[in-house]
Amino acid sequence: MQQAIERISVATQEQGLYEVTSSLRAFVGDSGIGLGLVTAYVRHTSCSLLIQENADPDVQVDLAGFFRRLVPEGMDWLIHTTEGPDDMPAHIKAALTQTSIGIPVSEGRPVLGTWQGLYLFEHRSQPHRREIVFHIIGE
Amino acid sequence: MQQAIERISVATQEQGLYEVTSSLRAFVGDSGIGLGLVTAYVRHTSCSLLIQENADPDVQVDLAGFFRRLVPEGMDWLIHTTEGPDDMPAHIKAALTQTSIGIPVSEGRPVLGTWQGLYLFEHRSQPHRREIVFHIIGE
Amino acid sequence: MQQAIERISVATQEQGLYEVTSSLRAFVGDSGIGLGLVTAYVRHTSCSLLIQENADPDVQVDLAGFFRRLVPEGMDWLIHTTEGPDDMPAHIKAALTQTSIGIPVSEGRPVLGTWQGLYLFEHRSQPHRREIVFHIIGE
Repeated sequence: MQQAIERISVATQEQGLYEVTSSLRAFVGDSGIGLGLVTAYVRHTSCSLLIQENADPDVQVDLAGFFRRLVPEGMDWLIHTTEGPDDMPAHIKAALTQTSIGIPVSEGRPVLGTWQGLYLFEHRSQPHRREIVFHIIGE
Repeated sequence: MQQAIERISVATQEQGLYEVTSSLRAFVGDSGIGLGLVTAYVRHTSCSLLIQENADPDVQVDLAGFFRRLVPEGMDWLIHTTEGPDDMPAHIKAALTQTSIGIPVSEGRPVLGTWQGLYLFEHRSQPHRREIVFHIIGE
Repeated sequence: MQQAIERISVATQEQGLYEVTSSLRAFVGDSGIGLGLVTAYVRHTSCSLLIQENADPDVQVDLAGFFRRLVPEGMDWLIHTTEGPDDMPAHIKAALTQTSIGIPVSEGRPVLGTWQGLYLFEHRSQPHRREIVFHIIGE
């Protein structure tokens, strides 16, 4: 049984989805592990992770659009407002999505479906440098 | 340390929750692993996974009812509409729930609570064949 | 390769977030595992788990406030009402957040970001005793 771990950095410009599927595939491939479990974990609370369709980019636009409407800036009952109008909505959007996603690995590849991609979902308006940790265990 | 992996297929008829707890328990039991971690992963982006109460079936009806109201068909700002009125809402509902769930295994069984069941949550209106991957590692 | 498993109990008084980060860190430290994967799993369907900011407590208040507004008590279309007005909203809030969270472990510690904490998110109004299972695998 073997393991590997790696931290990757993702530069975001604004709110939206940033695909990291190729980094995930490369990490799994480089590990040399054929059967196992790979975990993606994001070390922040104002962005998150998502498995979503990577065929039509409109899906990503609509996803971000829904979350912007569900958790708008300017909700007047918020008390955590010192870090900007987009910060508390960002924490809420992160709570509604995922911080961690585990994906089985078979024949040296994550078992993503045909149309599935792994995305970093940035919830802040300004550019950020985000850190994702990949971990794999198996043999 | 051992591993096992299996793909199961779930036939869905319409939107709603489909319990797969017995398949999960059978997979864990067949693996012969006493202590470990089992992961359920769904290979689609318009259905998802959920741990929920399996005592009162009304809970499942209300859950589906809530998501249908939160993410209704016909939101006029959507741009990804080519795959039908239920498709983009399905992607959004999947983003709001889970694609992957990890459950510790103890004494040869997933540590589900007394009332917990594992469900495939179908978000599309028409029948679909859905694939779930189970993976277990432990000894 | 080694494993460890532990069940911790959390006493909740009312709806809100209860931090369990120190229990998680202690479990990982006691396991003696340097590199691995730790999983937190909650054995209930009316509370859930969340990774969130542990710097400003206002974030936790606002998070609970958002979910209370998104899933209010008294939605008149609910049919599962026998266990009290807070029960079905609790199941829905649990579905919108997490039952299970996997966190890579590096140098003997979960790779939580600087401001990240692990929380039990209680969705019921009355006091409850909640059980979380921690599992770690690695070496």
